Amino acid sequence: MSTIADVAARAGVSKATASRALSGRGYVSEETRSRVAAAAAELAYVAHSSAISLATGRTQTVGVIMPPVDRWFFSELLAGLQESLFALDYELALYGLREGTTTRERLFDKVLPRRRFDGIIAVGLQPSAHELERLRRSERPLVSVGPYSEGSSSVSIDDTAAARIATEHLIELGHTDIAFVGGSADAGALSFGDARRVEGYLEALRAADLAARARLVEAAPTMPGGYGAAAELLGDRRGRPTAIVGVCDEAAIGATIAARRLGIAVPTELSVVGIDDHQHAEMFSLTTIRQSPREQGHEAVRLLRERIEHSDAPPEHVVPASALVVRNSTAAPRHGS
Amino acid sequence: MSTIADVAARAGVSKATASRALSGRGYVSEETRSRVAAAAAELAYVAHSSAISLATGRTQTVGVIMPPVDRWFFSELLAGLQESLFALDYELALYGLREGTTTRERLFDKVLPRRRFDGIIAVGLQPSAHELERLRRSERPLVSVGPYSEGSSSVSIDDTAAARIATEHLIELGHTDIAFVGGSADAGALSFGDARRVEGYLEALRAADLAARARLVEAAPTMPGGYGAAAELLGDRRGRPTAIVGVCDEAAIGATIAARRLGIAVPTELSVVGIDDHQHAEMFSLTTIRQSPREQGHEAVRLLRERIEHSDAPPEHVVPASALVVRNSTAAPRHGS
Repeated sequence: MSTIADVAARAGVSKATASRALSGRGYVSEETRSRVAAAAAELAYVAHSSAISLATGRTQTVGVIMPPVDRWFFSELLAGLQESLFALDYELALYGLREGTTTRERLFDKVLPRRRFDGIIAVGLQPSAHELERLRRSERPLVSVGPYSEGSSSVSIDDTAAARIATEHLIELGHTDIAFVGGSADAGALSFGDARRVEGYLEALRAADLAARARLVEAAPTMPGGYGAAAELLGDRRGRPTAIVGVCDEAAIGATIAARRLGIAVPTELSVVGIDDHQHAEMFSLTTIRQSPREQGHEAVRLLRERIEHSDAPPEHVVPASALVVRNSTAAPRHGS
Repeated sequence: MSTIADVAARAGVSKATASRALSGRGYVSEETRSRVAAAAAELAYVAHSSAISLATGRTQTVGVIMPPVDRWFFSELLAGLQESLFALDYELALYGLREGTTTRERLFDKVLPRRRFDGIIAVGLQPSAHELERLRRSERPLVSVGPYSEGSSSVSIDDTAAARIATEHLIELGHTDIAFVGGSADAGALSFGDARRVEGYLEALRAADLAARARLVEAAPTMPGGYGAAAELLGDRRGRPTAIVGVCDEAAIGATIAARRLGIAVPTELSVVGIDDHQHAEMFSLTTIRQSPREQGHEAVRLLRERIEHSDAPPEHVVPASALVVRNSTAAPRHGS
């Protein structure tokens, strides 16, 4: 196999020049570039990333740290990251992460410092001070999606506002008995974004003098989680709320399925609203707050790339708009309920 | 930042020896290894993958090519790959792929040949002869998950057998009018695995002299796909089958939801069986054929690693067992139906 040295020799330039010409980074005259390209073609030379990397200091690789891709948000976001990184000819090195495991410690202390990236995108993860320090020492730009720490750029919807708008929609329809499925009085038990959604729900109730009616029902933010919690909540006819806010569409869809199984008509007997506009929301006619994780992936890559090109770019926080989408799962409560 | 040259100089060894000592690959005496380790510690040296790579010829990186991770199978499989690769200290370079796009051509002809991996795992993708040739030229081992080509190792359940067992279960219960949701008479319109599942369904019908009753209902292999197709199929009371085989659990769950909305009781009026044992199968009491994509991910990494270590290992095809799990969505047809 031909090496960069062979190409350089045939083109009559130094190895560094040949590398610059082939990688497209750094100045090379047009004439030199075409001479090197011709030599590379004649020798059927294929540039290897390690060699390019040592010559340019760039790896064209972005490290992506994210939780297991078993929820719609993460799979859509990953698709967005893949699209943008592939278009820019960046490699995506993927690191999975569950909260609170020794894996996390090993990743930040041992794995990431040894690997070379041009930048890192951290998804659904609030780096600790220690972790940020590890990243800072490596002098690689960091962009967060979802929870973030001061000093790093981020893309994140306003989760508080999303849940507040969803709850206000129900209050405007006349509901006063609104449960939140997927909440907890213990914010530490929830993810960063989900804790903010609980806060948005409570804010809307407070503004309508309904704070005393708040009902936080614990549930995993999944379809089975919402199903199980709603089956219990709705099983007792007397204490039944007239409306439910799901912490996410998956929980709201689970609650909808539980209601149907119990013979409770949506929306005439129960209104349900979610947050996300999940791919299955339309099938369940679910009223929801729309966000686009795929576009958030594109934004994250844009922010990171700017910081790779300009290492002194100040932190930037992008807050994508999220809008209420009214479908057929919400209506005014029945008179007298 | 310290370089490998600084470490080598302080330890009084060559750069190649220092690299071998730090990477753990290749022979270095124990005394030399500890002297180099001490020098690296004093200099706070962090080995960089590009340097290790040039010194050892290994990149500790595995390229993973897979479709968008928006179906349960792919997200579970990816989790399995991540677990095994992380445990072995391999980096995972992820490449997304939609069938039939120019992206695929660019990936095989331009991107993969330029990048350095120790091996490649291709998921849900049958490489063409041209693509296999590109991979073979790079002399990197390849393991396929799902569809595969001769000459490469693979992990794949027997999709034909899975669908045959699911259909036989319904036939044994007494059903003779069994529709397959997610099929097509045109095998080319289906993924490799889904086409085999259609074949397994037809095999079971033929063996029971029911071939003339075969009904292939086209549907995307998703929950909304199964929902839409089943809503149409079940809407007309007269032509209604007594049982449905879903091409996958997602399609079967969609069909179950459609039946419930139409007031058709499962399993007394309609039996439904799926394939996968999806994370939501239990919530819908779905009878299904269990497979574990996460374990398939572990197997794929094991096969690939053997071939990285022993480049002359012959191709191996692993066929994980898949078993019938009977829940509450299947029963004998009502008398007279």
